[in-house]
Amino acid sequence: MEKIAVIGGGSWATALVKILSENKSEIHWWMRQQEDVKHLLNFRHNPRYLSSVNFDLTYVKPSTDLAAVVKNSDWVILAVPGAFVQQAISALPKDAFKNKVMVSAIKGMIPTEHSLVTHYLEKHFDVPASHQCVIAGPCHAEEVALEKQSYLTIGSHDLQRATRFCELLRNRYVKANPLDDIDGIEYCAVMKNIIALACGIAHGLGYGDNFQAVMVSNSMDEIERFLNAAMPVHRSLVGSAYLGDLLVTAYSQFSRNRTFGNMIGRGYSVKSAQFEMNMVAEGYYAVNSIHELNKTLQVEMPITNAVYNILYERIAPAVEMEILKEKFK
Amino acid sequence: MEKIAVIGGGSWATALVKILSENKSEIHWWMRQQEDVKHLLNFRHNPRYLSSVNFDLTYVKPSTDLAAVVKNSDWVILAVPGAFVQQAISALPKDAFKNKVMVSAIKGMIPTEHSLVTHYLEKHFDVPASHQCVIAGPCHAEEVALEKQSYLTIGSHDLQRATRFCELLRNRYVKANPLDDIDGIEYCAVMKNIIALACGIAHGLGYGDNFQAVMVSNSMDEIERFLNAAMPVHRSLVGSAYLGDLLVTAYSQFSRNRTFGNMIGRGYSVKSAQFEMNMVAEGYYAVNSIHELNKTLQVEMPITNAVYNILYERIAPAVEMEILKEKFK
Repeated sequence: MEKIAVIGGGSWATALVKILSENKSEIHWWMRQQEDVKHLLNFRHNPRYLSSVNFDLTYVKPSTDLAAVVKNSDWVILAVPGAFVQQAISALPKDAFKNKVMVSAIKGMIPTEHSLVTHYLEKHFDVPASHQCVIAGPCHAEEVALEKQSYLTIGSHDLQRATRFCELLRNRYVKANPLDDIDGIEYCAVMKNIIALACGIAHGLGYGDNFQAVMVSNSMDEIERFLNAAMPVHRSLVGSAYLGDLLVTAYSQFSRNRTFGNMIGRGYSVKSAQFEMNMVAEGYYAVNSIHELNKTLQVEMPITNAVYNILYERIAPAVEMEILKEKFK
Repeated sequence: MEKIAVIGGGSWATALVKILSENKSEIHWWMRQQEDVKHLLNFRHNPRYLSSVNFDLTYVKPSTDLAAVVKNSDWVILAVPGAFVQQAISALPKDAFKNKVMVSAIKGMIPTEHSLVTHYLEKHFDVPASHQCVIAGPCHAEEVALEKQSYLTIGSHDLQRATRFCELLRNRYVKANPLDDIDGIEYCAVMKNIIALACGIAHGLGYGDNFQAVMVSNSMDEIERFLNAAMPVHRSLVGSAYLGDLLVTAYSQFSRNRTFGNMIGRGYSVKSAQFEMNMVAEGYYAVNSIHELNKTLQVEMPITNAVYNILYERIAPAVEMEILKEKFK
């Protein structure tokens, strides 16, 4: 029986616990709040997210003791928002993850360092690249809860590890495939949130489906330019870990980045949109980090620049969208 | 003042007449029914499609006399469904289009010959490749009526002609760009309808957004394989004439191919779905033609085969989707 720590109590963490525990892995599930742990032990579901999902407590062990959760596990899945990673794990000793395989399920960056989660773990916890995986792919947690057919891609420099983790995930409604372009899919997962935000802004301003299709097409070139500068390897960006992930985020009603963008496009301020949503839109932090990294890379990124200017420079969404409109083909 | 024939009275034809006549081209508009012509002359809108759009009769001349409409024009836009092209124009003499520039706005094939519209015009009317253009791009007619920002791509072997036609189209809410891959964008426009149909079938069967994103990602590989076999030139399939057109069709509520597929997925027979919709879903004919062409090309086309089997071999949609599900990555 594999022992897996899941760090985080959000919807994606909850979906992963469902998938992995149904396959009879032993899940040590770290949640921040004692009352959520109590609720889970009493009623066998997460009170906050995907609360229709019932867990078998033979396999699911919730706890607020992070050090114990990590210690008891061979695999450690990080599934908190990128902006909360440091807060969640920085109190752990530097060797806390020694001999563990770290799996990032985070589709965001560490905002203070503008770094990918895997790079952060390597730098601050000495986790070697060969002991790291990322979970990518077009997969809304809400559809996992409904057991709708979904596909995941596990990225790792160590394809054997990725393949093993795929086996832990596969079931009746989840397919999983390994891929070695870990940095590429991690960056792409980050950037797709920026694009979804841009799509939401356009929608909020009254642009239609025709425009959104052109936005997504143009964004693929932007993502490719960035990836070729940041991580130049051969990759086909139309794969489901790249284009698929972008589509599910940019087009789905479940996407919080698109919803956040939509509110911005309709005239909400950043603060009031965040307050109203009561959820973190990863794209908000991602656009700042990618914009910062691009000061060095100097790639042409019109969509990223537009979203950055709207969210951080208080340029009117309508103005930025007019500029984008002229650049698109 | 450019003189342009528009052959067809459907929604896309109506949208094109709106765009071109607003730019003060003289439009000779062929419609099949005398009563529609009368209605247009009396009330200045098309009674059947986009009826909110009003036309300036200084520029728009409706008629049921096809020969006169063609004779009076320098450009001839074909905008009837692919399945009705022969019926519409086969009575014209072989030299009817001599010295005209033919512009296909059709996103389908000639079903009896399994040929692209441009190839059909070359074969049966001696129209040289240099005198042909196609209109592509993610552009729902309904959004043109609403004057939502849209992008068109004009394909032609003669880029000067394509560029000139772009000038006739461009306005406040339409951008247009020329491209020389005329066969590629014509085939892609045909195939996207098959993919939209497949997405509709999946949706009708209860598959969700996660699966659709994977379907669209996998379809890009399928389209690329086919195009590389049928028309091997270098092209970037993420452009708005390719991926953009696919997205707007596969994801939009306006897509009749997706709607048709949805009904098939929910258990309607082909006949009853066609009867209920009272519109032609191009994908129904397209999948037969592409399937036939692929008997020679022998490319791996799992989605096309699945849609073909469902529509023409009466295999249950659920069975074909199970097979596809296993093939996707």
